[in-house]
Amino acid sequence: MPEETTNAEITSRIQASFDRQVFMKTVGARLVSVGSGQVTIEWPFRSELTQQHGFLHAGVVAAVVDSACGYAALTMMPPDAAVLSVEFKVNLLKPAAGTHFRAIGKVIRAGRTLTVCGGEVHAHLDGKDSVIAIMQATMMAVRDSNGLVD
Amino acid sequence: MPEETTNAEITSRIQASFDRQVFMKTVGARLVSVGSGQVTIEWPFRSELTQQHGFLHAGVVAAVVDSACGYAALTMMPPDAAVLSVEFKVNLLKPAAGTHFRAIGKVIRAGRTLTVCGGEVHAHLDGKDSVIAIMQATMMAVRDSNGLVD
Amino acid sequence: MPEETTNAEITSRIQASFDRQVFMKTVGARLVSVGSGQVTIEWPFRSELTQQHGFLHAGVVAAVVDSACGYAALTMMPPDAAVLSVEFKVNLLKPAAGTHFRAIGKVIRAGRTLTVCGGEVHAHLDGKDSVIAIMQATMMAVRDSNGLVD
Amino acid sequence: MPEETTNAEITSRIQASFDRQVFMKTVGARLVSVGSGQVTIEWPFRSELTQQHGFLHAGVVAAVVDSACGYAALTMMPPDAAVLSVEFKVNLLKPAAGTHFRAIGKVIRAGRTLTVCGGEVHAHLDGKDSVIAIMQATMMAVRDSNGLVD
Repeated sequence: MPEETTNAEITSRIQASFDRQVFMKTVGARLVSVGSGQVTIEWPFRSELTQQHGFLHAGVVAAVVDSACGYAALTMMPPDAAVLSVEFKVNLLKPAAGTHFRAIGKVIRAGRTLTVCGGEVHAHLDGKDSVIAIMQATMMAVRDSNGLVD
Repeated sequence: MPEETTNAEITSRIQASFDRQVFMKTVGARLVSVGSGQVTIEWPFRSELTQQHGFLHAGVVAAVVDSACGYAALTMMPPDAAVLSVEFKVNLLKPAAGTHFRAIGKVIRAGRTLTVCGGEVHAHLDGKDSVIAIMQATMMAVRDSNGLVD
Repeated sequence: MPEETTNAEITSRIQASFDRQVFMKTVGARLVSVGSGQVTIEWPFRSELTQQHGFLHAGVVAAVVDSACGYAALTMMPPDAAVLSVEFKVNLLKPAAGTHFRAIGKVIRAGRTLTVCGGEVHAHLDGKDSVIAIMQATMMAVRDSNGLVD
Repeated sequence: MPEETTNAEITSRIQASFDRQVFMKTVGARLVSVGSGQVTIEWPFRSELTQQHGFLHAGVVAAVVDSACGYAALTMMPPDAAVLSVEFKVNLLKPAAGTHFRAIGKVIRAGRTLTVCGGEVHAHLDGKDSVIAIMQATMMAVRDSNGLVD
């Protein structure tokens, strides 16, 4: 019996988990690609998600790239593992102005318990694409979703 | 003519800015206190804001404490300044399980251009209160809201 | 047979580990207090440790407060555990000017595998004490010192 | 009269600043390349720089990659500017075991006041090279080296 997880299995496992992230629905985000150690999520501008200057709230930007990093980490974890964010750090390079946004999460180093990821967020505005935020994050493989720092 | 900004003026300026943060409405957050260098925001659990395990999404937690830190910084900036987040780092201490949440942002060091803040997020569950996340953040005073890293 | 670790045992275990940190000798640092979840280290200004403006190099500041945070975490780990830094984030509040420095590491949340710490560094100059840097860090309990992210 | 700074001028300005970083001498570090927005520093293992398990202290790793990031930022600043680290975040991917180390700092986004950099540190051991740490950092252009967060 094959123990190896096929790519299709990983993708469908991540799609199912993503579909349970109700906040991603609130944001209007969709999973656009799942590769080994890399996940891309896209979403449109929505006025419900803005801060005081009319740009996307930095926390929304952080939320989507955190999800992208978490799922990138999950692609390299055992099939029975769940993923939780231990910590993340975001640098906001430009105001989050755009009609569409794309968050890319990549695994930098996968370990048995901890996986370190890098993420970036692109904004699409007036036919141009620019990086508006970068993330450096630590993800944790958990068997029991109740124990984050455990 | 007094040049000093009264507390009431600061509070009303921050309340007005907070009211323009449409994402805070989406979260159901309200500004509960504004002091010199300290701001508290509270919000209820909402299923629209959850991740795959039914807890609040880490990005939502980050978003509200980022707002609390940003406004804490703004209390110590000149009246004509706006505030933008340069970067923030969040450690997630426990899953964000609770019926109500409270984010507290505090100024640690206020400078002319940059202000460093510390934040924490409390969850209220079954009559108990616990700290679920901490933030360390850099905020920037801007005269022109178009120039984040400028 | 008592399983409880006494304070004296913890202190002597941490002092022994600190004495093996050759870099702390290079810095001239000494362990001045070890409490449950809190460790303080002090060191003098040394010109060998400076950056281009004659202040202490930010990396030296980070190194000592990282050691203080790591040992603070170790006070709350089982006797057979070693501690390794998973990640840390430092905000530099002021140039590191002073004749003496003090780093304080405190446990914010201790878990079975990961412990989150906060640290601060004080500089003493002209009879005045000020906080020059703060740290937010994640420490890991390891049984095998070869596996950092594992 | 040409206002443009030539590459040779930038390199010699950075070499001069690096030579004033006494801590880099203590580490045994040398500047091996300076390009537009990218700086590489190398250094050998030295037992004076170790932590309790005989690996390089994480703070030394942070110090050198902080210098690499700072100088990378300086390559894109005006000739009269100095650079100071506002904050940095390091993820330690593996124990710092090696005979030689190399830190590479790169500018991700250069602004008028703030520049965001990414860094990585490679260790060379037994003919193999691996990334042992990554950094995400914010650097600030200052005209007056006394005002870090100002």
